[in-house]
Amino acid sequence: MANCLVAQSGGPSSVINATVAGVVKANQMNPIYDIVYGGLNGIEGILQERLVDLTHMSEQENRILRQTPSSALGSCRYKLKRDNVEDFEKLFKIMEKYDIETLFYTGGNDSMDTVAALSEYAEKHGITGRRFVGCPKTVDNDLVHTDHCPGFASAAKFIATTAMQTWLDVNVYTRQEVFILETMGRDAGWLAASACLSGIVDLVVLPEEAFDKENFLAQVKKCIEAKNKCYVVVSEGCRYADGTYLAAGEAKNDGFGHAVLGGAGNAVKNMILESGVASRCKVQDLSTAQRCHASEQSLVDVEESFRLGMSAHMRSADKTFTGKMVGVKRKDQPEYDVEFFAIEANKVANFVKGFPKEWILPDYKGITEEAYQYLRPLIQGSPVIIYENGIPAYVKPYYMR
Amino acid sequence: MANCLVAQSGGPSSVINATVAGVVKANQMNPIYDIVYGGLNGIEGILQERLVDLTHMSEQENRILRQTPSSALGSCRYKLKRDNVEDFEKLFKIMEKYDIETLFYTGGNDSMDTVAALSEYAEKHGITGRRFVGCPKTVDNDLVHTDHCPGFASAAKFIATTAMQTWLDVNVYTRQEVFILETMGRDAGWLAASACLSGIVDLVVLPEEAFDKENFLAQVKKCIEAKNKCYVVVSEGCRYADGTYLAAGEAKNDGFGHAVLGGAGNAVKNMILESGVASRCKVQDLSTAQRCHASEQSLVDVEESFRLGMSAHMRSADKTFTGKMVGVKRKDQPEYDVEFFAIEANKVANFVKGFPKEWILPDYKGITEEAYQYLRPLIQGSPVIIYENGIPAYVKPYYMR
Repeated sequence: MANCLVAQSGGPSSVINATVAGVVKANQMNPIYDIVYGGLNGIEGILQERLVDLTHMSEQENRILRQTPSSALGSCRYKLKRDNVEDFEKLFKIMEKYDIETLFYTGGNDSMDTVAALSEYAEKHGITGRRFVGCPKTVDNDLVHTDHCPGFASAAKFIATTAMQTWLDVNVYTRQEVFILETMGRDAGWLAASACLSGIVDLVVLPEEAFDKENFLAQVKKCIEAKNKCYVVVSEGCRYADGTYLAAGEAKNDGFGHAVLGGAGNAVKNMILESGVASRCKVQDLSTAQRCHASEQSLVDVEESFRLGMSAHMRSADKTFTGKMVGVKRKDQPEYDVEFFAIEANKVANFVKGFPKEWILPDYKGITEEAYQYLRPLIQGSPVIIYENGIPAYVKPYYMR
Repeated sequence: MANCLVAQSGGPSSVINATVAGVVKANQMNPIYDIVYGGLNGIEGILQERLVDLTHMSEQENRILRQTPSSALGSCRYKLKRDNVEDFEKLFKIMEKYDIETLFYTGGNDSMDTVAALSEYAEKHGITGRRFVGCPKTVDNDLVHTDHCPGFASAAKFIATTAMQTWLDVNVYTRQEVFILETMGRDAGWLAASACLSGIVDLVVLPEEAFDKENFLAQVKKCIEAKNKCYVVVSEGCRYADGTYLAAGEAKNDGFGHAVLGGAGNAVKNMILESGVASRCKVQDLSTAQRCHASEQSLVDVEESFRLGMSAHMRSADKTFTGKMVGVKRKDQPEYDVEFFAIEANKVANFVKGFPKEWILPDYKGITEEAYQYLRPLIQGSPVIIYENGIPAYVKPYYMR
């Protein structure tokens, strides 16, 4: 038998490790590979032959890995460019050296592009016995074709819970208050919209609709006039009709040419205070915590992420299975359940699935019942978390061992 | 029998409602008062006769109240000034009208001052049958005499957990990273120090020691040179030797003349980037979430807060019990346990207990083993949280009913 390799890419989530745990566990249950390697720091580390052996991971480590946030194997923002022949040749040589038949790669749409590029390269050059399988992962929930992405629901649950808790906090005084919760979401409003699951959001600003400052301030004013309080949720990626981000003053670039955002909440705060529609305004930017707050994972999310890894492993027994991403399909039935399916990675790469415009209520008033029906099942259940000394137990990152 | 009144003051915490739940439950178990009133928005609402009847709260509501963060009765920053005779007279008239014998007041040292002032007033004016009992509550943990304050441990647990999780998040790339976690703590470093319970903190900056920019930057540099990463925790209240807050640019005033802080994390970030000791720096300001994140309460904290309310109620059967605060005393034995005791509220009011200087390691390197022995028992255990639709179930604030 040959070996397989699992690696992680892109920004972390609370359940991305569960997919790795699923690949490892599936191979223990049905060993179609001799060795399950973990690649450290994604493609970047694999190109440096930084591999660890995960084959015989204990059940206890597997269980703790599933509740460990972020990427235990490390991540990278290294993009394998199609014209960089050297990288491709090197990668295939390493796969040959370690007898790696299948690479499982977890990530967002950049990672799916890597999966597509590698399988295309193999096909084009007549390389057989090297296969590439993508596993979706992104708190942003913006991949096409899959019903949702592992990682999203746990972040959504934390955001909705925090919205409820900060709303209870900010309302305790009789004075006027505007509270602004800023969430992640570069191009898609899924995370900001999830805050509505708390049932307390007055106004939500999503990147899918051009920001209309005048109307927004009018809505804040109405809300303040009605109850002297206003709870606002704003996605970091919100922008004006001309494409300028609300947080434009703060924008920088990451390695992929994406804008690194932050500051939309403060931008909204400043416009509220300057307009005079309210006199007090507080901002909570959930920042990094929202994507790694694994001590309140959604049980649905962590189980789906684990099973998706298992499904990817099991499907890879088929020697023609390459260049695919394993996605999640919601069954068309009243009780929530999912099945997994495979789709060409190049049909997912470099597309973005925004929050549906038809699910957005006018005047920043929140989301439709259809949106709630989509979101609600995803955040159900809480796994039993294993603690050590009052803090959740986590595996030591493999890249630090 | 006469009646009693329980009310909340100051900034919210994750377990302040458990004290109210304790007073209510104790009176159900041993009804020494006919009616347990809840006063809305502290002294401010009591002066407007905004009272609710909590006497017959169901066990289910009591249980959910204990897991509900923030002040379910509402809070105030209204300070009863000793020379404002009108307020005092009005308050005693309202107590007479509603036949209120005992007022239980939860809060920090301003609230203990209120308790002291009211009991002094009663004594001075020969008013009998009106008594005042303080219940400590502050995430800042800065009250004297009590071993610790209900509310602190749950915030400490959330901070330590979030430190661990964000550390796992920020380390995934091979690149250089400085991460700065900003915690609350206006004058005391208890919350910032608690982050060390995660075991991952490289440098911690506490308000108890004058900030030495040069030495701090030297430590960051050393850390970056050793491992290319540096995890820093900074308390909002940190200041230079001359008393200037690091966050000076952002400082404003609250109603009590305290500086409203925020921005110490960004101040540290800016000095790191400007000095060139590191090139990448990210800030997470835990802001409001850290004091209301009740879905991960410390079991020790919520149970102590509940029992402290019960103890206050039970002690008030003694008709001479007034002007006191009920505090927490740690038993002098290897296994952690506490007992409650009473102390004059005026011995607590307007004093601040900082994090002990002898527990601070030099060069921002963290805290001593003695500090860990103090902190560790406080964050143990997790209560079973009741969920509704994927979000923790919370009582509707009484001031909104």
